[in-house]
Amino acid sequence: MTRAAEMLETYPADLGRVDRKALVECIDACFECAQACTACADACLSEQMVRDLAKCIRTNLDCADVCVSTGNVLSRHTGYDANVTRSVLQACAIACRACGDECERHADMAHCRVCAEACRRCEQACNALLAGLG
Amino acid sequence: MTRAAEMLETYPADLGRVDRKALVECIDACFECAQACTACADACLSEQMVRDLAKCIRTNLDCADVCVSTGNVLSRHTGYDANVTRSVLQACAIACRACGDECERHADMAHCRVCAEACRRCEQACNALLAGLG
Amino acid sequence: MTRAAEMLETYPADLGRVDRKALVECIDACFECAQACTACADACLSEQMVRDLAKCIRTNLDCADVCVSTGNVLSRHTGYDANVTRSVLQACAIACRACGDECERHADMAHCRVCAEACRRCEQACNALLAGLG
Amino acid sequence: MTRAAEMLETYPADLGRVDRKALVECIDACFECAQACTACADACLSEQMVRDLAKCIRTNLDCADVCVSTGNVLSRHTGYDANVTRSVLQACAIACRACGDECERHADMAHCRVCAEACRRCEQACNALLAGLG
Repeated sequence: MTRAAEMLETYPADLGRVDRKALVECIDACFECAQACTACADACLSEQMVRDLAKCIRTNLDCADVCVSTGNVLSRHTGYDANVTRSVLQACAIACRACGDECERHADMAHCRVCAEACRRCEQACNALLAGLG
Repeated sequence: MTRAAEMLETYPADLGRVDRKALVECIDACFECAQACTACADACLSEQMVRDLAKCIRTNLDCADVCVSTGNVLSRHTGYDANVTRSVLQACAIACRACGDECERHADMAHCRVCAEACRRCEQACNALLAGLG
Repeated sequence: MTRAAEMLETYPADLGRVDRKALVECIDACFECAQACTACADACLSEQMVRDLAKCIRTNLDCADVCVSTGNVLSRHTGYDANVTRSVLQACAIACRACGDECERHADMAHCRVCAEACRRCEQACNALLAGLG
Repeated sequence: MTRAAEMLETYPADLGRVDRKALVECIDACFECAQACTACADACLSEQMVRDLAKCIRTNLDCADVCVSTGNVLSRHTGYDANVTRSVLQACAIACRACGDECERHADMAHCRVCAEACRRCEQACNALLAGLG
């Protein structure tokens, strides 16, 4: 059980009819992806051909920002607003898709390959949670 | 001219056919709204009837998170991706709408009144920029 | 091996004489603590006696902010600046100490108990990394 | 009067013996500097000789992260903890100093010149606030 799962278990009020497993998976995926994208941007920055990686770095930075804010929104349950959660998840899935696609174009670099895995996992977790929101 | 406008003027590559005035207005509105929401959440927390403000605080925190990540995405122009920008702006407009509505319900408190103004300004700036994205 | 460890393994340039195990532990602890503190602030907000938890919520929010920025700084290795890393780690250890102490005062609530564990782990990880910086 | 000043005026509880002018100046400087650093990192990324700017971009990214978290901590007054505020301000002053120094080395580029001004302003505002904390 991850810490995010432990925290969810201790929430003292009613969580409504949320899929707890999908929620924890998505929170964990968001923070993991944020860290991977921050690290991937930095790894790209140290590459000899950084000029060819400018778009990848930019997409990494966007994805990291969006994943942290999404992970934060999903970590809150009080005063839940489905519209906010839905639009944030949509933005996160799109940022992860863009970043995963860009990193796969550079899959000869191990950091982009690992980062793409984190992006794909997060995109899928966002979409799975979105599907359950109805 | 705000610092964000100065920074935009110094961007060394092609910005494409962006509405610079709307872009700067939206960047400034995002960071202003993020700060106002962080401060409003804290002001609510010090109120005697904080129990009645739980939803307001939560909405403030979400709005602050989304506004910072949106302000960051809009501050980048290299390797521009219209899909990411569009979805982030949509999420930001929705978070600002939710927070502005909630704060207006507590407009007898000056901090909620000022915060609602920041949310309305940011929501409008996001929508204006979205309209120009086509 | 966590994703942060995988990302560190793929860094393409010289990492210098860093303790990789301590670094990964600290990055993971920072993001875990950030999430736990965001969730704990929200759980406190849903408690009946939220008025008694105002300081706890505030400390949670500070700790979450500082942990994310520390986790990001530690995820970058290019153009390393020991002064920045040291001061950020010191601030993070202090924020985690304050938050862990405050949460322990409310250890009858499970969310504060779990959050305090995350804060203690992160404080120790920051101090361990600081000790190695010399 | 900036929005941060308006928000501070509406804080409903006792602020203690804080220098309100220095506090508002520092909050505004933090968010301004965060935006400038995010934009400067992106501008560097679009330069032909981005390889020579790797350290500048990294310092920009660190400074942006630290400035946002510092601006957030300073925007909260409930349950004030002087140790946390002091250590966060120290980290911010050091990050701004490092980034201002690095950007000045590239003052032939207008974005680095403008960003250095934002970093200097923020460093001074942090130090002024620190001096008043006693």
